[in-house]
Amino acid sequence: MKALFFDGKLTLRDVDSPRPAPGEALIKVLMAGICGTDREILKGYSGFRGIPGHEFVGQVVECKETEWLGRRVVGEINLACGQCAWCRKGLGRHCPTRSVLGIVNRPGVFAESVTLPVENLHAVPEEIDDAAATFTEPIAAACEILEQMPIAPGTRVAVLGAGRLGLLVAQVLKRAGAEITLIGRHPWKLDLARRWRVHVVTAGSAELRPASFPVTVDATGSAAGLAEALRLVEPRGVAVMKSTFHGKAEFDSAKLVVDEITLLGSRCGCFEPAIELLRQRCVEVQPLISKTFPLAQGVEAFAYLEHTSALKVLLTMV
Amino acid sequence: MKALFFDGKLTLRDVDSPRPAPGEALIKVLMAGICGTDREILKGYSGFRGIPGHEFVGQVVECKETEWLGRRVVGEINLACGQCAWCRKGLGRHCPTRSVLGIVNRPGVFAESVTLPVENLHAVPEEIDDAAATFTEPIAAACEILEQMPIAPGTRVAVLGAGRLGLLVAQVLKRAGAEITLIGRHPWKLDLARRWRVHVVTAGSAELRPASFPVTVDATGSAAGLAEALRLVEPRGVAVMKSTFHGKAEFDSAKLVVDEITLLGSRCGCFEPAIELLRQRCVEVQPLISKTFPLAQGVEAFAYLEHTSALKVLLTMV
Repeated sequence: MKALFFDGKLTLRDVDSPRPAPGEALIKVLMAGICGTDREILKGYSGFRGIPGHEFVGQVVECKETEWLGRRVVGEINLACGQCAWCRKGLGRHCPTRSVLGIVNRPGVFAESVTLPVENLHAVPEEIDDAAATFTEPIAAACEILEQMPIAPGTRVAVLGAGRLGLLVAQVLKRAGAEITLIGRHPWKLDLARRWRVHVVTAGSAELRPASFPVTVDATGSAAGLAEALRLVEPRGVAVMKSTFHGKAEFDSAKLVVDEITLLGSRCGCFEPAIELLRQRCVEVQPLISKTFPLAQGVEAFAYLEHTSALKVLLTMV
Repeated sequence: MKALFFDGKLTLRDVDSPRPAPGEALIKVLMAGICGTDREILKGYSGFRGIPGHEFVGQVVECKETEWLGRRVVGEINLACGQCAWCRKGLGRHCPTRSVLGIVNRPGVFAESVTLPVENLHAVPEEIDDAAATFTEPIAAACEILEQMPIAPGTRVAVLGAGRLGLLVAQVLKRAGAEITLIGRHPWKLDLARRWRVHVVTAGSAELRPASFPVTVDATGSAAGLAEALRLVEPRGVAVMKSTFHGKAEFDSAKLVVDEITLLGSRCGCFEPAIELLRQRCVEVQPLISKTFPLAQGVEAFAYLEHTSALKVLLTMV
């Protein structure tokens, strides 16, 4: 099959099709989304070698549990042991021996097919089209914030970064009742958010006073974004780190202690609430799709993201 | 009066005695403790210039509210406006226009007298002797952790740093029911903790596996201590930053996000629970006192701390 393969350099290759292990399904990938983490992997993040990609929608083409055959699915990206203390607590996404689809020790979805354990699969309701379904994983990541901390209705939240993730986080937290200020650099991205009645501010604006939000969310994927999230959060507030980046972060430790700030790392979430938000059209994703490339032009798709200020770029396999 | 004065260099000086403003008391300082923050101030922390020192016990010698006259007191170190939103919430220690005794814009206690607003004062019960009373502020700082987060009985907590603060944090959290592992470098300091039935481990021991504690507390006052607290904390765990240091902290941002770690800054606490712990002798402080110097030898006291592995050094003014 055709696949994108990263071994220090990203190339399109012919590779063997995967074979499902017991308990796994073989899935024909229909569409996949390129995430910030994929681009960080190309810079060295997680030391990954192989087929990247973890945001996808596909169709089950081979599975011992025949009720899955032919179904359109999305898949949770953490492959857990199912037996350790973390897995028994329902937190398999922190299982210490897990692999992670297209990120840690597991071939990903920038390919014509992929295998996943059946317990990772979620059927996609027919109200959700293929392109929208590829957003399940990043919307789940946005929902994860609400699973980690309560955000009371009316809470003022600054979301830093009007990129793919920031625009989803803004919608999800707005839907939960928060009063969102979205901070970005590109006017056209901020304009997208206006229609959701989100207050938008250009990064660097004097309007952004220090210590002025009880909650800030860094979705910029940069050390500078984290520093700004810490600058904007008020004493006893919470700064959520929502995006990963390759490299060290630096911060003023005294400010964190003196202002008693909570810095909260936040990663993957459960798929159920994300699918429900998509089904009810509570999160708008179509305006976030900048361009769709065929898999065969996957390398060009990454280059396109690198050289433009595009939002979501999708790959289509069929 | 005699006072220690820092203006880039610490010296003993003759300075004017302070005059109490309306609502303030004039306090004759009896004893004072040297804290890690005082030593950081000498390295540039907070840009403080003037008389440092904030851990003390004293006697009220002048006060319009005559019921305080002659009483032995300790004093909360944050001087708040009393009117802002923070003060109205009872969180004057985060008042944005506050001054802080001997740390920010307010002369401290390494002097023969000091003034403080009456509302900052707490009477010292007679069961608590002068030396023990100087520990009220750091014990309150240890108690602050419990005000910020619940720690269920039996929770395994690693306390990093068997110095002044770490030995107090270990006792306070042990008393709250946590199962403490205290990590330090000096065997004689760790031996102190054994008598409190605290598990002690030498820093760097292979016993300290990564991601093995749900809660870690950095009381080392060093960037390396923070890094170790983050290494030892398990996914979804909390690393408490309990000590301030001058300079930038660096950490692996990806680990924080991927493991969904909470990094919690923690500073000053309320005095009431600390006084009660001292009164009931639930926290043992006598073994923590390495040496007591007269105020006139205050510069030597700092040098002693710099050149030894001493625990608490006290200054006596009478």
